[in-house]
Amino acid sequence: MITFKEAYAKVLEHTVDYGTEQVSLKDAVGRVLAVDVKSDRDFPPFNRATKDGIALSFSAIKNGQDSFKIEAVIPAGNPTIELKETTSCVEIMTGAVVPNSTDVVVMYEDISIENGIAKLQKVPTQGQNIHLKGSDEVKGAVVLHKNTLITAAEIGVLSAVGSAEVLVKKLPKITTIATGNELVEVTEVPLPHQIRKSNINSLCAALLEEHIVAKSLHLKDSKEAIKEALEVALQNNDVLLLSGGVSKGKFDFLPVVLEELGVEKVFHKVLQRPGKPFWFGIHKKTNTVIFSFPGNPASTFANYHIYFKDWLTESLELPVTANLVVLNENVENKGTLTLFLRVKITFENGKLIANRIKENGSGDLTSLANCDGFIKVAPNQNTYLKGDTIPFIKTRRVL
Amino acid sequence: MITFKEAYAKVLEHTVDYGTEQVSLKDAVGRVLAVDVKSDRDFPPFNRATKDGIALSFSAIKNGQDSFKIEAVIPAGNPTIELKETTSCVEIMTGAVVPNSTDVVVMYEDISIENGIAKLQKVPTQGQNIHLKGSDEVKGAVVLHKNTLITAAEIGVLSAVGSAEVLVKKLPKITTIATGNELVEVTEVPLPHQIRKSNINSLCAALLEEHIVAKSLHLKDSKEAIKEALEVALQNNDVLLLSGGVSKGKFDFLPVVLEELGVEKVFHKVLQRPGKPFWFGIHKKTNTVIFSFPGNPASTFANYHIYFKDWLTESLELPVTANLVVLNENVENKGTLTLFLRVKITFENGKLIANRIKENGSGDLTSLANCDGFIKVAPNQNTYLKGDTIPFIKTRRVL
Repeated sequence: MITFKEAYAKVLEHTVDYGTEQVSLKDAVGRVLAVDVKSDRDFPPFNRATKDGIALSFSAIKNGQDSFKIEAVIPAGNPTIELKETTSCVEIMTGAVVPNSTDVVVMYEDISIENGIAKLQKVPTQGQNIHLKGSDEVKGAVVLHKNTLITAAEIGVLSAVGSAEVLVKKLPKITTIATGNELVEVTEVPLPHQIRKSNINSLCAALLEEHIVAKSLHLKDSKEAIKEALEVALQNNDVLLLSGGVSKGKFDFLPVVLEELGVEKVFHKVLQRPGKPFWFGIHKKTNTVIFSFPGNPASTFANYHIYFKDWLTESLELPVTANLVVLNENVENKGTLTLFLRVKITFENGKLIANRIKENGSGDLTSLANCDGFIKVAPNQNTYLKGDTIPFIKTRRVL
Repeated sequence: MITFKEAYAKVLEHTVDYGTEQVSLKDAVGRVLAVDVKSDRDFPPFNRATKDGIALSFSAIKNGQDSFKIEAVIPAGNPTIELKETTSCVEIMTGAVVPNSTDVVVMYEDISIENGIAKLQKVPTQGQNIHLKGSDEVKGAVVLHKNTLITAAEIGVLSAVGSAEVLVKKLPKITTIATGNELVEVTEVPLPHQIRKSNINSLCAALLEEHIVAKSLHLKDSKEAIKEALEVALQNNDVLLLSGGVSKGKFDFLPVVLEELGVEKVFHKVLQRPGKPFWFGIHKKTNTVIFSFPGNPASTFANYHIYFKDWLTESLELPVTANLVVLNENVENKGTLTLFLRVKITFENGKLIANRIKENGSGDLTSLANCDGFIKVAPNQNTYLKGDTIPFIKTRRVL
């Protein structure tokens, strides 16, 4: 059996580049940018008024002038108008092009207007309320870098530079597969010895947050049926996420069947809890990656977040971040397994505090809804003390 | 002009309950649960084997027995089988029902099997590897509480208790509205005095992350056209998010038109930067809430996250959390405006560190893509020192 550290490293050795695809701007949210995006013009594209008021030449103020004839009005969206006389002014609106013959904008709040003459109430500063052409970005500058996650702010920038279509990283095609005769549909009333499918629904929901619409499959414990279905699934998917059927049981056909189908086992079983019987492999012929998780709810859920999430993040060339949180109580792990303990995160004075929650083993489904993630407790350790930091793997959005 | 604190309080005074709707389980991710969900059976529903191995009666071990005849095999998903002799055992698979006549499961790793006889390699503990019926939750217990955000973990619980349909909070119908003659479509090449629409695309992207598919509208600076369009928009929406046209400009028709249409102004202008000319009102006749943001990119973006997000969160009865982060440099604000400064968050030893980024005023669009959110710097303050905590408003997922 390999250590958690070894298993994690092996999973991340098998990231895959799924190439790129063009999507429309509105479909780009949550996707990863596949190219540097450059501005097609200066940002802002002209000297832009940032206040409503008047534009004038500062030289006139230096000459002691404080009243200015209004020559014209420049709304946003109109070509600009130059001053006829440097001793005059124009009314100008926020977002309009500041005339080249002017170099200061005074807002309405700081002037009075009577009979077409604007009078200053206070002395302005040269250049004020003008957002200078190219001061944010110059034409041709990279405004968004390749491998950036596209959120609302990036959509704003993409819009501004005219990216109606965006080149993004392709996402893997995924099928989630539940195994086990004990499983029935959510709509069914289970017999006493049956339970409803929950793991693959949970996985599909988690994948949806990654903008991946996964398919689902349920395989009964028949070796032939499993083999037939997996053969097709390997052809049609980039990733298979399986739940159950990988332990020591008499009907745990997955490891054998996967190898019969030519899937190369990278490892089976990891010194960790929950999630020990995790089987990981790759099918070189179809370039399919197989995450075969043990079927206990906490095992599937933990391993998805511990391994698959970082594997996906690295496959998309986003940065994998290791986050530390502060322990709210002493924790020890004298055993040989890396432990993943459920915690709820609270915020205290800018610190992330990990509070352990009541949990009842690998099968405990409801505690997963009460936690924000897992702390990773390394094996063979002295006690971690309250106040120490410890690695944290989130299972929901924390901040 | 009112203070930020007053404005924020007034916005949150106008939250709205949009009622509930039934959605299918797969559409429930990201929605807010509108009822307590109870378990329809014990969790787990039976004494469940958590390992593959043999089940036997501990009394036999106490009597010094260490070899057990295997009477049968119990797969998961089958009705259980009781022991005929208390001195025998059954093979049992993970997820199967543990016979009532047994009280310990020993995993295959700790036994050897020869000629139908299982021999213990080490002495087990009574009750081990049995996940006791009802030990996570008893039938009828509330497993998920009303006003819970549904994520992958909750989908697992909803599946397990048979909630194929889920009662969730309805989301408001929203239209985002850009105003201004200077705006052209993302697909167009703007004339020198024009810019592409970016704010409402950014708002729609942000709303999509709240699972709200918003409509968009662009209004030119014509009072009549604006009035006509807004009259229809008020009828068809729960919320209008407007960008631009609320300042002192000659073509800033929105405040007047909104009031002519019977929208009650709650406030106009807030002592804050960016986002000062924010106009907020409600249309009692149609129960529409109007957030009319100033049109500078940072102003619209900041006010959406500062006001609208918390308004939505409280309308959905989710908890609004105030997060503190640790300053990485001294910050002062001797003026009368509450300042919202762009920061990037880094994690250091379990602490959230706020690092200010280069920004270039309200019009600076690209800096919004470089920041994680805003720190809120209260007015008339002494200097905040490096290491002090300060409130943080996120504009993207931080953890």
